[in-house]
Formats: sequence, structure tokens, C-alpha cells
Amino acid sequence: MSSENATEECLGWAARDVSGVLSPFNFKRRAVGEDDVSIKITHCGICYADVLYTRSKFGEPRYPLVPGHEIVGVVEEVGSNVDGFKVGDHVGVGTYVNSCRDCENCNGGLEVHCTKGRVGTINSIDVDGTITKGGYSSFIVVHEKYCFKIPESYPLALAAPLLCAGITVYTPMMRHKMNQPGKSLGVIGLGGLGHMAVKFGKAFGLNVTVLSTKASKKEEALDLLGADNFVVSSDEQQMTALANSLDFIIDTASGDHPIDPYMSLLRTGGVLVLVGFPSEIKLHPISLLMGMKSISGSATGGLKQTQEMIDLCATQEIFPKVEVIQIQYVNEALERLIKGDVKYRFVIDIENSLK
Amino acid sequence: MSSENATEECLGWAARDVSGVLSPFNFKRRAVGEDDVSIKITHCGICYADVLYTRSKFGEPRYPLVPGHEIVGVVEEVGSNVDGFKVGDHVGVGTYVNSCRDCENCNGGLEVHCTKGRVGTINSIDVDGTITKGGYSSFIVVHEKYCFKIPESYPLALAAPLLCAGITVYTPMMRHKMNQPGKSLGVIGLGGLGHMAVKFGKAFGLNVTVLSTKASKKEEALDLLGADNFVVSSDEQQMTALANSLDFIIDTASGDHPIDPYMSLLRTGGVLVLVGFPSEIKLHPISLLMGMKSISGSATGGLKQTQEMIDLCATQEIFPKVEVIQIQYVNEALERLIKGDVKYRFVIDIENSLK
Repeated sequence: MSSENATEECLGWAARDVSGVLSPFNFKRRAVGEDDVSIKITHCGICYADVLYTRSKFGEPRYPLVPGHEIVGVVEEVGSNVDGFKVGDHVGVGTYVNSCRDCENCNGGLEVHCTKGRVGTINSIDVDGTITKGGYSSFIVVHEKYCFKIPESYPLALAAPLLCAGITVYTPMMRHKMNQPGKSLGVIGLGGLGHMAVKFGKAFGLNVTVLSTKASKKEEALDLLGADNFVVSSDEQQMTALANSLDFIIDTASGDHPIDPYMSLLRTGGVLVLVGFPSEIKLHPISLLMGMKSISGSATGGLKQTQEMIDLCATQEIFPKVEVIQIQYVNEALERLIKGDVKYRFVIDIENSLK
Repeated sequence: MSSENATEECLGWAARDVSGVLSPFNFKRRAVGEDDVSIKITHCGICYADVLYTRSKFGEPRYPLVPGHEIVGVVEEVGSNVDGFKVGDHVGVGTYVNSCRDCENCNGGLEVHCTKGRVGTINSIDVDGTITKGGYSSFIVVHEKYCFKIPESYPLALAAPLLCAGITVYTPMMRHKMNQPGKSLGVIGLGGLGHMAVKFGKAFGLNVTVLSTKASKKEEALDLLGADNFVVSSDEQQMTALANSLDFIIDTASGDHPIDPYMSLLRTGGVLVLVGFPSEIKLHPISLLMGMKSISGSATGGLKQTQEMIDLCATQEIFPKVEVIQIQYVNEALERLIKGDVKYRFVIDIENSLK
């Protein structure tokens, strides 16, 4: 199982330096090992992490860097030991492609928090010593444990955002028992992650309030996504009216923003979970001490829970709202993503544009 | 029930301005109402909150301000409706003396988080419209619901610190299930709160690590308090060796201090609970995102849990370590407290020095 064995050339788009500008870059994938699945990629979602990785804002980038960790496609080949997948199956790959499978976190369904370090889908060291390259590419070879089944009925383009945006908000909601009808959820930010949080919230029977800096988002939050309530976070009167009323807040904003005003919205014992990536978190101790409130973090999720989330989306017909683009538009898309100008997730039509 | 009915003069010590300097101040307490208990104060612990309140660092001070919310004493008189206490009983009063007794928090045993606002033992508006005055005084009149029984066997001087320091660390330990033997506890700061956290930790069968900026505290942490491990927080090697190993950290430090290095010590899903009062909390999002860690806060505790904690201390013979002082020494004691120069709680011998 080494890259010398690989045969087919993989077509991809990569960033070459901290400008983060992507351009075509062809490379080799490792040969399909006995536990591996080779996937012809049909679609890949664009996550804000792709901006962070390619522009050297998250760890040390190893250029050429091929981003993309919301990967879906069709199985093209399976290794001799693979029993969970067969050629033709619809599959997904998320933010990591390996872990030790031996530590307490791996054994406890928290592979993303593998104590020996999970292998990220992008910019990590793969089993063959090469740098992992993501889904802005024509195919990928992944150990079957780290592949998810996408039900046939679920459109592949819509499945892509589940692999990061979906699981990132689903995991903390489940961890904090926010699947109990009647509870109240606040969602900060209405991007890829935020709009999925609204959708899960409504599927779970929660009372969902969208908190946004932009009054212009009200109509889409209420009418398009079905939120129960919309509050402009700069409007003190609206914020005061909401004080001490929310059980849980998912904060998806990656720009720097004050946390204290949102903490005041939580009920006693309430939790704000950060899933975005601001440069720093600052808050006043009173925001935690009074009402024994918490701020927590979460990063994607474990393997079993990811499959459970995909299956839930299929059975309950929970679909992300996406804007499908061609790979040739990816640099403009990344710029628009930085400006928050996307409803709500870009998905690259790899199959039809990467040739 | 108004102050006009009061007869006896209460002797006290009060701060008159933001200097926080205390001096004798005599005043009236309200008459004993039908649900009230009048308590001859024997001892009062000195809490860091007394510094914050008297020096205008926590809310608006209403001078003359009589501090003290770790109050113990002996019942001198009871109202006609009082059925939980009789003259001669040993009793304690903590950080609050009233609440609405009607909201979901009061009904749920979280009176300290009363949604209509609890009445603090100091600097709050009492039922008769006067400003509540704390335990640096000869007696106090309190609704019986907010008084705790101190078992006869428990020395009153040692009981005082339980009413704030004790319950402040006990509450989050119970909330986060840190009474399960074998779990690992980190304690930041070895003052009134910190040393009680170590004692509860050992009583619960935890593996306790004291984290301190001062290497000089090692011997007392291990030998005097029985901690299992001692780490100098500025020693990178010691901190690295402890990485990802603690289930829970109680952070009792009130001075500003970095949080990120301590977050790195937590295991996956670990929680750092803030019970001190720094001016601001700053942390990097990675500290929360990686390992779905949390930072939470806690403030004293509910009535039922406070009584439970006192009873536990009595049956398990958990005693704070205190330095008993005369009221005339209180200003020096407050200065020493600010410098962290106390092992581990000052307790004022009100009975024998306030005359």
C-alpha cells in the first residue's frame, strides 16, 4: 500500500501558497489497500475550513494543498477485506480518514478526538507517508471505516454538506440533549452550519431563534428555513426581551464577535457551543458565574454518530440548501464564502466540471 | 416587620467608601418576623467577595457596607411560624437571605439563581426596604428557609467557611458528577475555595492535582491537604506531562490568568469551572473545539445542597483549615487575603472580639 502502486492520475485543484488561490493540480493517490474503498467523487462541499487551511490560518499548510472534506461519490473499487461497501454504492467522507482505532476515544465513538491524533482528510500525514489531499479532486482512497453510506434516495449534491456542516451542529445538539421537543435553541449565524442547526432544531421540535447581525436575514430565517423567531443581535430591546430564555445556543460565527450578550440569553445552566473559529474568545466571568452557564466547543463528530445523522436526514427528509458550482468558479466561491454571501453552502459539481 | 420594630442595637464593622477600610458601625436590624430566626453571630468567615463588595469591584456598593456572608452562630429567638429551629440551635447563613420561593429555579433547589433575583446577605434590599448587612456584626435576623443547621459536633469556627467557600466548590463538583471515585480533579489556587476542593476531592476518592504558580506550595498541598499531585503551572514540562489527563478543573483564582494552558490538561469532554472572579476570561477557540471541552461557572449553591454539604462535612469530618482572628485585625486580614497570604480562610471570632 504505497503511492508507487497507484496507477490512475487524480485530477485536483490545489492552493500553492498563502494566497489560497486554487488552480489545477494532478497527483497520485495510493493504491487501494485491502481495507480501502476507492471513491469516484461526484460532489464536494466548500467549508470555511478550506479557507483556513489554504490561507495558513489553521496549522501549517503543506502545499500544494488540495482542500475539501465534505466529499460524496460512488464506490469504484473495494479492497479484499472490505465488507461494508460494494462498487456502485453512494458514499461520503468527512473531515478525517483515519485514527488509531485503539484509544478510549476511538473505542468510545469519538474517533474525531483520537488521543493519538486523527488523520485529517486534508493536510495530514496519510498511512503511506503522503500528505492527505481532499475532495476538490476526481477520486479518493479511504479506509472503509471512515466512509459513510449515503442512502440511494438522498441526492448526492445535498449529502455533501452533511459530512462537515451537518455533523458539526448535530453532535453538540445530541450531546446536550437538544433533541427533546419544546426546548429552545438559539442559532448565531446563518451559513452552512447555522442553517443546518435551524433544520435539525425544527426536526427535533425545538423553538428556534435565529440571531443575526443582519436584519435582512429575517424573512429567509422565518419563511425559508422555518425558524420560530428572529432577533437582530445589535437590537438591545430585542435581546433584552430574549434574556434568560434559551436552553442552548449554537454559535457558528467565525468572525470575532462579543460573547457576553449571547450568554445573557441563556437560561440557568444553559450552554453556548462554539463551532465557528473566531481568533479569540473573550467574556466576562459574570456571564458564566451567574446562572452556572457554560461555553463549550465541538468539532465534527464520531463515525457512528455521523452515519446516524445521515440516516436521520434521509428518513426525515432534512436537506441542506446548496448552491451548486463548477470547480472553475471555486476561487470566486471562496471569496463569497468569506463575505458570507452564500445560501447556504457551496457544493462543487466535481463529476461534471473537473475533467 | 419593619425596622421601627427593632429594639436591640446591632454592633458591626462597615466600609464607608471605596477604600474598603472597615471601622465600627452600629445599626438596627429589623424585628424578628413570624418566619424569622434571630442569630447571635459567633463567627464569620472572610471571603474574597468581601473585598470586591467593599471596594466597589462588584456592583454598586451601598455604604456603610457591612460585609460577611459566611455566618455561623446560635439561635437567640424564633418567630411564631418557625418550625425548623429553636433557641440554642447552631445555625449558619450563607450568601443570600431571601428569594422569591416561586420561580422555577427556587422550586428546583437553585434559589441562588432565583429568576426574580435572590436577596444577597450583603448590599441588597431586604424585605423591610433596608440594605442587608452581613456577618461582621453581632447578630442577624433571617427567614428560617435561608438558615442551615450546623450539627452540634461541628466546631462553629470551622463551619463558617462552608457557607460560601465550601458550597461554592461542592456545587459544581456535584453538578459535574465529580463525586465518583477514580476521577481526576485539578484545583487551581490554594486559598479558601481551593483547599476545600482538595478536601472534597479526597473525600470523594478522586485523584487530586493542585496547580499553583508557587512551587513553595508543594509540601502543604501534598502533606497538609493530602493532594496526590502538585504541578507548578509555569513549568511547561510538568504541564505537558499532565496534558489530556484531568476530568475536571476547579479554577479558584481571582487574579487574571491565562486559561488555555489549563484547558490543555483536560481530557476529551472535560470541564473547567470558574469560581473565582478575574476581570476577564480570554481563551483560544481551539481550547474548546478540540476535545469538546467546556468552561463553566458556578456561584455558591442551592439551599438543599448547602445543607447536604454541611451534613457531609460533619459525618465525614471534613474541616476547613482556618486562621481565627479578632475583628480588630480585619483590615490587615483583608490586605493579607488580597496577597493570598492566608492558610486558608480567615474566620473572625465575632463572639469574643466584637463588643
